[in-house]
Amino acid sequence: MIQIKNVLVLLESEDKGFKLQRTDIFIKNGKIVSLGKAPEDFFAEKIIDGTRKLAMPGLVNAHTHSYMTVFRNCADDRSFEDWLFKYIMPLEDKLVAEDAYWGSLLAMIEMIKTGTTCFTDMHMHINQVPKAAVETGIRAVITRGLAGETLADGGQRRLDEAFSEINNWKGEENISFMLAPHAPYSCGKEYLKVIAQMAKENDLGINIHLSESLFEVESAKENFGMTPIEYVDSLGLFENRTVAAHCVNLSENDFNILKEKNVSVATNPASNMKLGNGFAPVAELLKRGINVCLGTDGAASNNSLNMFREMGFLGLIHKGTAKDPLPVSAADCIKAATANGAKAAGLSEKIGKIEAGMDADIILIDMDTPAFNPFNSSISALVYSAGGYEVDTVMVKGKILMEGRILTTIDEEKVYYKVNEIAKRLGIGENL
Amino acid sequence: MIQIKNVLVLLESEDKGFKLQRTDIFIKNGKIVSLGKAPEDFFAEKIIDGTRKLAMPGLVNAHTHSYMTVFRNCADDRSFEDWLFKYIMPLEDKLVAEDAYWGSLLAMIEMIKTGTTCFTDMHMHINQVPKAAVETGIRAVITRGLAGETLADGGQRRLDEAFSEINNWKGEENISFMLAPHAPYSCGKEYLKVIAQMAKENDLGINIHLSESLFEVESAKENFGMTPIEYVDSLGLFENRTVAAHCVNLSENDFNILKEKNVSVATNPASNMKLGNGFAPVAELLKRGINVCLGTDGAASNNSLNMFREMGFLGLIHKGTAKDPLPVSAADCIKAATANGAKAAGLSEKIGKIEAGMDADIILIDMDTPAFNPFNSSISALVYSAGGYEVDTVMVKGKILMEGRILTTIDEEKVYYKVNEIAKRLGIGENL
Repeated sequence: MIQIKNVLVLLESEDKGFKLQRTDIFIKNGKIVSLGKAPEDFFAEKIIDGTRKLAMPGLVNAHTHSYMTVFRNCADDRSFEDWLFKYIMPLEDKLVAEDAYWGSLLAMIEMIKTGTTCFTDMHMHINQVPKAAVETGIRAVITRGLAGETLADGGQRRLDEAFSEINNWKGEENISFMLAPHAPYSCGKEYLKVIAQMAKENDLGINIHLSESLFEVESAKENFGMTPIEYVDSLGLFENRTVAAHCVNLSENDFNILKEKNVSVATNPASNMKLGNGFAPVAELLKRGINVCLGTDGAASNNSLNMFREMGFLGLIHKGTAKDPLPVSAADCIKAATANGAKAAGLSEKIGKIEAGMDADIILIDMDTPAFNPFNSSISALVYSAGGYEVDTVMVKGKILMEGRILTTIDEEKVYYKVNEIAKRLGIGENL
Repeated sequence: MIQIKNVLVLLESEDKGFKLQRTDIFIKNGKIVSLGKAPEDFFAEKIIDGTRKLAMPGLVNAHTHSYMTVFRNCADDRSFEDWLFKYIMPLEDKLVAEDAYWGSLLAMIEMIKTGTTCFTDMHMHINQVPKAAVETGIRAVITRGLAGETLADGGQRRLDEAFSEINNWKGEENISFMLAPHAPYSCGKEYLKVIAQMAKENDLGINIHLSESLFEVESAKENFGMTPIEYVDSLGLFENRTVAAHCVNLSENDFNILKEKNVSVATNPASNMKLGNGFAPVAELLKRGINVCLGTDGAASNNSLNMFREMGFLGLIHKGTAKDPLPVSAADCIKAATANGAKAAGLSEKIGKIEAGMDADIILIDMDTPAFNPFNSSISALVYSAGGYEVDTVMVKGKILMEGRILTTIDEEKVYYKVNEIAKRLGIGENL
C-alpha cells in the first residue's frame, strides 16, 4: 500500500480539459483505491511526499518498434529510400532474437526515464519485448508485425508466431496484444482479410501503418483504385478496434471512414518529419472527433522515445503549419499522450487517468525544475517547457520502476554495454 | 588549471561538418591551451575524467529575452494579438527591476542545465541581466531594447540607458554588448538612423527583430514601400554587424541583402510555431551561405530556453516542410547552435569551437544515457535524440558552473521561491 501525500494531481476537468488538484493518492494491490481520504483499513507501507511534485497518468506511447533503439542514429540525413533499403532493412536481417531483447531493454530505460508507462510495440522477433517488459514491469501492448503477399509467402508463419507469442505471455497482467498487419503495401489482400477475421475471432485489436507517405497513397490508388484507408476498410479491417499509425495523407473520404469506424490515429510527428513525410492533419482529426493518440515510432526514425519531446512537437508543429496558435492545445497533447493512447490500446478501463478504480500507472514530476517555474500553468509546462527529465518517479500497477530518477528494475550499465556490443557486431557502432 | 582527460571531443572536420576525437583538453587561465599533449609547466589542479563524456563547445543562444521566464506558460494557446496585447505587454508594464534580476537567474538555471554558455539578450530593465550573468559566470551579450517613434518619444532615454548599461559592465570579461532597435515597426526612421550611426561610432553590433510575422511584412510594404529588410538596409543598419532575429517571411531581394551585407539570421523555431508565424526558410538561408544561428526567443513565446530542444526542432521541422530528409542536417544544427552563434555575437575569436587558444566555454555530455546509446553517431544523437539533461558539466572561461548536474553558482531553490513570489504579485501564478 502506497500513499502519495499532498501531491498536485492532473485530473480531467468538466470542460474536457485538465485541472490540478492538491490531494493524496492511495494505492492498494496495484490500483488507485481513493483520492483525498484514506479508505478504511489502509496502512501505508510507503509514503511518498508529493509536496513539490505533480502526479499524472503515465504516458502511453501509441506506436513504436522498441528494439529499433539498436539502430538509433545509424543512418540519419539520408533519403527515405537510402535509409530504408540501404541501411535499416539489411541491418534488421542481421538482428538475432537476443539483440531484440537488449534493444527493448534500452527502449524501456528511455521510456521509463521520460515517463512512459505503456507502449504499443510492433516487432518481428517474438517473445523478446514481452520478456523484457515483464522483467522491467512496464506495460506493453505486443504486436508481431505481419507481412506477406499470401499465407504461403511467410504470412502464415508470421501469424502462427503472433499467436505463439500471445499464448506465451497472455498470463501476464502487464501485457496485452493486438494483431499487426504491417501495411497495405506489405500484406496481400487475402492475407489482410484473414488477419481481420482472426482479430475478430480472438477479440484482438488491429495495429497497422496507414498512409504514411504520399508514395504509398499514390501506389494504393494505382494498384487498388482506392486510398490505403478505403482499401483496408473494404477488406473489413476496421470492423476491429484499430490503431492506424501515421495517417499523414488523408482524403475527405478517409476522414469520414476513420470517424465512422472509430479508428484511433497514432500520430508520430518526429518520425514523419525526419523521414520527409511531412505533417499529419492533426487539427482536422481533432476537429472531427477522431481519437488521436501519440507515438514516437521506432528510434531509427525519430531518434528518441521521449514522449515529452514528442508532446512538444505535437503542440507546436501544427501551430506552424496552420500559422495559427490555436489548433492543437496543450490539453490536446496531454490527452493524446494519456487517455487517448489508453483508448487506442483498449485499456481505457485501466489506465490513462488518475481516478479511483484505475490501475496505479502514475508518474511524479519534479516541479523544482526550470520548466515548471514559476507555477503559471503546469498544464502548459508539461507540453511547452518540459523535457522529460523532470520525471522523478514512475510506477506501473503500483510497482515503482523509477524513484529519484534511479531505475529499480533495469541495470542500465549492462544494457548500454550490451547494445554497444550489438552495434559493433552490426558494423554501425562508432569506434570511440 | 584543469585537465579533461580522455574525453571524446567534437571538432570541426575538413568537410566543414564535425568529427569526434578522443583526447585530453588542457585549460589554463580560462583558455584552452592545448589538446592532446600537456603544455610545459602545466600542473592540473583539477582532473575531470572524460572517459564516458563528450566535450563540445557550450551552446550559444543567439536570441532570447531572458527574464521573460517569469511569464513562462502564462498565456498559451491564444491568438498572437491576445497573447501580446492582453497578457504580455500589460504584464511587462508591471515588472520592476528586481523582477528582471530574478527572472534572469531563472533563465540562467535553465540555460546552464541544458548546456548554454552564452546568450544574446534583449531587455528593457537595464543592469539586471548583466548583474545576474556576472554573479553566475555565464557569458552574455547585453542589448537594451530600443523603441520609439522619435528620440523625444522615449528613444533618447532608452539609448542613454543602453550606454549607461554598457558603461556599467564593460569591464566584465563575460559581458559584451550590441545595440538593439526592437523592430522597424517599433522604431521611427530617424531613430533607426541614429542607432545605426551610434553602433558604427562605438563599434557595436546590431540586434533586431525582422520579418517575424506576415502582418509585419505587409505593413512595411504599405508604410515604406519596402520589405522590413529592404527598409532597415536603406537606413544603413546593415553597415554594422547585425543579428536579425526571426526572418520568417523573406523575398528574393531580402535573401540577397542578407547575404551581401553579411547579416546573421537568428532563427527561433519554437517561438515561430508557437505564435503561429510559421517556419523560417532555413534550408534556403543555408544554401545561400547566410550565417544561420539558433535562438529560443523568450520563455513567454517558446516556453523553454533549452537549446537541445531547439536543435531538435531545427533539425526536424525543415525536413517536414520540404518533405525531404536532407535540407537541414544534424551538423547544420550543431553549427547554428555553436560557431554560427559565436560569429553572430562577434565572439568567433573566443568561443564556438574547442581549439587551442579559445576560451574554455565547454560542456561535457554524459554518454551513459539512452540518447547516446548505442554509440552509432554521437553527432546525430546531439540533435535527434538528446533532451538536454545529458549535459553533466558546464564551464565558461574554465570556471565550472555545473558539475554532475549540480549548479555551483546559483541557489536554485531561492530563485524558484522568488520567481513564484513575482508571479503571484503579477496575478499569474497558479495557486498550488
